[in-house]
Amino acid sequence: MSKLNFTRAVGLALVVIATGSALASNRQKKPRESRSVREIRAVLDRQVECWNKRDLEGFMEGYWRSPELTFYSGGTKTSSWDKTIERYRERYQSAGAEMGRLEFLDLKIEMLGERAAFVRGRYHLKMTNAEPTGLFTLTFRKLAGGWKIVHDHTSSS
Amino acid sequence: MSKLNFTRAVGLALVVIATGSALASNRQKKPRESRSVREIRAVLDRQVECWNKRDLEGFMEGYWRSPELTFYSGGTKTSSWDKTIERYRERYQSAGAEMGRLEFLDLKIEMLGERAAFVRGRYHLKMTNAEPTGLFTLTFRKLAGGWKIVHDHTSSS
Repeated sequence: MSKLNFTRAVGLALVVIATGSALASNRQKKPRESRSVREIRAVLDRQVECWNKRDLEGFMEGYWRSPELTFYSGGTKTSSWDKTIERYRERYQSAGAEMGRLEFLDLKIEMLGERAAFVRGRYHLKMTNAEPTGLFTLTFRKLAGGWKIVHDHTSSS
Repeated sequence: MSKLNFTRAVGLALVVIATGSALASNRQKKPRESRSVREIRAVLDRQVECWNKRDLEGFMEGYWRSPELTFYSGGTKTSSWDKTIERYRERYQSAGAEMGRLEFLDLKIEMLGERAAFVRGRYHLKMTNAEPTGLFTLTFRKLAGGWKIVHDHTSSS
């Protein structure tokens, strides 16, 4: 390698290193936000996965296990984690009921600060003889146990 | 006044001043939160006031004037401020329609950070022959123009 080529090679290497560092530092600039969005998406993915295995306890892990959890469905207000799971059990696991296959569509996860976010989306349930669908708005908070839904507002036509 | 009484009076005055300062500093510890809640409540109060004067433009000032505003009602999604006011005009100001007397009940304003909050509540409309009511969840953001609703999810039974 001639001295000129060596200098060029070193120069190129420096450019590569500098570009790499710039990309890495760019990535580091907003890690919390994108990481939070990924974590929230993972909570929702897990909810869908659990629902489709008929694992209601697993599905309910996405919700804040608190008497302060609120769940609005149509014109009905349910308060507390206990009453929310009870409502799900009655509607989807009692005699003659089916859980169907759940899907979340059009998910829009928007951060509202470092420890809060809200999610807009549409649910779709594929049942034997029906396909109920509707809109939801979820308020998420980052709590000690990770990202949890603290309020759910769901409605359909 | 004897010297003893004077000393006591000065002592008492100092206690009063110290207590006053402690209260003031306590108040200063979380002024932004309570001030934000008051500001958000004022936006909602103004909305009710405008609605009841049939001032839809004034009512709509509570909403983010943006194509990104979203409004979920039952199973229907409306996007943008323009389409939201259009929807209100069609439903409440077209021929034969009435706006009724609006009231917001059970308001729960919860901060989600310094510049975001969500509000849970119930609306009640007193019309000539009906009294529609339902639940709502509002996402508020503090923008350049003050606190604005960036997302509204409303539903009824």
